[in-house]
Amino acid sequence: MTKIRELKTYFSDLKRLSYVYNLLNWDQRVYMPEGSNEGRSEIIAYISKLRHKRLISDKTKRLIKEAEKVDDLDLIDDAILREAKREYEKAVRVPPELVEELAKNATLSHNGWKKAREKNDFSLFEPWLTKMIDLQKKYADYIDMYPNRYDNLLDEYEPGATSDWLTNLFVSLKPKLSTILNKLMDSEDQPNRSILAKSYSPEKQWAFCRDIIKKLNFDFQIGRLDKSVHPFTISIASTDVRITSRIIEKFLPSCIFGTIHECGHALYEMGLMNEIHSTNLASGCSMGIHESQSRLWENIIGRSKEFWDFWYPKLQKYFPENLRDFPASEFYRAINKVEPSTIRVEADELTYSLHIILRFELEKLIFADKIEVNELPQLWNQKMEELLFLSPNNDAEGILQDVHWSGGAFGYFPSYALGNLYASQIYSTAQKEISGLSTHLSQGNYKPLLDYLRKNIHQFGKIYPPRELIKRVSGEKLNSRYFLEHLKDKFYPMYNIN
Amino acid sequence: MTKIRELKTYFSDLKRLSYVYNLLNWDQRVYMPEGSNEGRSEIIAYISKLRHKRLISDKTKRLIKEAEKVDDLDLIDDAILREAKREYEKAVRVPPELVEELAKNATLSHNGWKKAREKNDFSLFEPWLTKMIDLQKKYADYIDMYPNRYDNLLDEYEPGATSDWLTNLFVSLKPKLSTILNKLMDSEDQPNRSILAKSYSPEKQWAFCRDIIKKLNFDFQIGRLDKSVHPFTISIASTDVRITSRIIEKFLPSCIFGTIHECGHALYEMGLMNEIHSTNLASGCSMGIHESQSRLWENIIGRSKEFWDFWYPKLQKYFPENLRDFPASEFYRAINKVEPSTIRVEADELTYSLHIILRFELEKLIFADKIEVNELPQLWNQKMEELLFLSPNNDAEGILQDVHWSGGAFGYFPSYALGNLYASQIYSTAQKEISGLSTHLSQGNYKPLLDYLRKNIHQFGKIYPPRELIKRVSGEKLNSRYFLEHLKDKFYPMYNIN
Repeated sequence: MTKIRELKTYFSDLKRLSYVYNLLNWDQRVYMPEGSNEGRSEIIAYISKLRHKRLISDKTKRLIKEAEKVDDLDLIDDAILREAKREYEKAVRVPPELVEELAKNATLSHNGWKKAREKNDFSLFEPWLTKMIDLQKKYADYIDMYPNRYDNLLDEYEPGATSDWLTNLFVSLKPKLSTILNKLMDSEDQPNRSILAKSYSPEKQWAFCRDIIKKLNFDFQIGRLDKSVHPFTISIASTDVRITSRIIEKFLPSCIFGTIHECGHALYEMGLMNEIHSTNLASGCSMGIHESQSRLWENIIGRSKEFWDFWYPKLQKYFPENLRDFPASEFYRAINKVEPSTIRVEADELTYSLHIILRFELEKLIFADKIEVNELPQLWNQKMEELLFLSPNNDAEGILQDVHWSGGAFGYFPSYALGNLYASQIYSTAQKEISGLSTHLSQGNYKPLLDYLRKNIHQFGKIYPPRELIKRVSGEKLNSRYFLEHLKDKFYPMYNIN
Repeated sequence: MTKIRELKTYFSDLKRLSYVYNLLNWDQRVYMPEGSNEGRSEIIAYISKLRHKRLISDKTKRLIKEAEKVDDLDLIDDAILREAKREYEKAVRVPPELVEELAKNATLSHNGWKKAREKNDFSLFEPWLTKMIDLQKKYADYIDMYPNRYDNLLDEYEPGATSDWLTNLFVSLKPKLSTILNKLMDSEDQPNRSILAKSYSPEKQWAFCRDIIKKLNFDFQIGRLDKSVHPFTISIASTDVRITSRIIEKFLPSCIFGTIHECGHALYEMGLMNEIHSTNLASGCSMGIHESQSRLWENIIGRSKEFWDFWYPKLQKYFPENLRDFPASEFYRAINKVEPSTIRVEADELTYSLHIILRFELEKLIFADKIEVNELPQLWNQKMEELLFLSPNNDAEGILQDVHWSGGAFGYFPSYALGNLYASQIYSTAQKEISGLSTHLSQGNYKPLLDYLRKNIHQFGKIYPPRELIKRVSGEKLNSRYFLEHLKDKFYPMYNIN
């Protein structure tokens, strides 16, 4: 048993280096003085390299080999070994030169993308996108765990996810989403969002959002909320989970739902069982499951009638000048309005997944060598027309809108859509198991739901792989039925559709 | 020449680990959620150990040996080698077990000290103090660079400083400080400090202090100011220098002079020449010199007439309710009042050094095995009576007041007194070399003085050892003449003494 303990300790040290890496990143995005960007990037690169060297060392190999000889590992130790092997085996397949080239080019490419987006000129990003795709193809070919190249990238974010599996899921989802969307668009009873675009004091928005996440059981003893340009969640320990959000004075939903979203991620990280703290199991089991937790709290809870039964009177007190005479029912419709738009991050609960399907379809083509980089903007716009009936005014609102590809994060987007599916499937079982859930929610009591999620998901961290986890929780494989039901149950009444 | 470059890079990586260590510390003291203390301490210990292992490795030894063979090193490379050797040779002399024991016991002892101070009971700290002294004796004996054991500890903070040298400096200083102090105490024209104890809004104090340090050329592009329980300065890169301060609502000087003090430290770290950024020369050349920079700005500048000629009208605008009708001349006397007290951190510019001499004399006895730990409180009180004519009400106000010994930092205190001496000697030469300095200062123009300090001190970092530096700057060895002159020139007129 000392064999597995040695492996555990070794990977805990690697985890500590990851936490250090995370703190360096958090600080850079939240409090670091601007003039230190270059120096900070050097330190980050140094820590990253140091960790990588230790990960691919002979010592790692030896510790894994020895741990494999141990019989009767318990659940946790078995998962520790599995994750150690998984990480090690992927890492050793990639030559160090490629790791360095990826890191170096990611920064340069990111700058290229920023400039291209500012100037609304895809040609400035094209050489970088070409480079990043080329490097990621090489990367995927070195990993070579799956015959389909793209699957090797998908597996980074959603272990076990394949292109075929996703295609199957999305093939049925896409037309059904379109059908619902068409019905909603045809309704004559359209919500009006103008109330959300009035002026809302940033300080009060912030205070209101803090009130919400406190009530959602975000634990400030082991967490922080700060401001940053783009909201994110990051763990610096299982006892130090930090979220950020942003405030747009004339668009109220940005801060509220951004904060609840990140809080959902944080509650996951805060709920890990003590036994796996500081181990290589101490984080969410996949990006898709992580995203299910943020979306469950943001969309299923945060945009529900019950939620606003409780919170709307409080919001009215914060902003009487805007909301005193505005009915709760109209506010609920405003924050839930479904409306095709060209921009993913502004998309509603329904059209969001269509944005993802678009990107997934393009990534499949890219990694199957079926499309040239210079053809991408046009195909993007064409698919946007098919899926959402509108065409971007320019590339900045089209293919240049997302940061992901500039950093080489291909295979990441599907997690967002998976998050929606997982969330609905999980919530559907929670509803069956928690008696009086709806009443709890309308009383601002989120403890029963959080306890359910902790018990069935959060505590396990990476102990179970995502497919196993969803089956344990819901008794069936991931499918899109619950998500589609959720959408219909919610939007048909709201739009007066029978 | 590649030999020295290799050494330089290797020590730059060690410096990066130090910066990471510093960020972990800064964050722990400023923003980290409370519940993560334990986890953070583990990460800090891990990084510390990682750095130590690399420092004492065979690779370090080899790189130093090879660099030593290189002829004609330039000024910077020569200093890089010297500092590398110095750090390596000290580190390898100490067994890793002792390093670990020191680290482990420092935390425990610190907790013991805290409890003892809270309960005002020296006996709770006595076993820990005994332990820390014992470990530090062992440490000094392993270092063994000087025959006098205590010198090995002094050298940690002030390279080259010996007990004899300090004794010589202080032997003449002590009676002369007493003479001045007695004269001031005998004067019938005593300043009144009650104005400083009115209520001053924390927000306004903070804004005023930000105004001051901006004007002092603290560069917010490469620095930050935050709040913490105890003010401190820390570098996370030469382009990322952070200070903290604190606010006491009913004691105005705390925030103002605390902030200027830390700003002085920061200006030093911000002024290093680019060529030594990220090298092992990238910090102040000794604690004494560092302290000279903070004290020069805090006391010589920040408590000067010229300073308040410029700032008092601004302070009056911030706090008209307290200061509108209060004369500048009286304010100047209030912030400069000399008054013996039992607490070091509350001491004025004159009596401060007496507090240090007391601690130095005790440390000498301790490390010469001439006193038992249980005799310390009484001797403390006795010396306090001799030096400052008063006796602490209890041990919390006596021997338990400082944190330093609890962490094993013996040999540190003298830096504070050295800082005063260095500051006056440096400032005296600056006055000769900068024409119209007094006018600049009364106009709030600190650039000429800062430029002088940058040119003669800051830019060099650790290139010159402290004794060489002071000689280069002032043309003579460190002595107490300038400090004593400064005190007389300042306080005799203020107290109407001829």
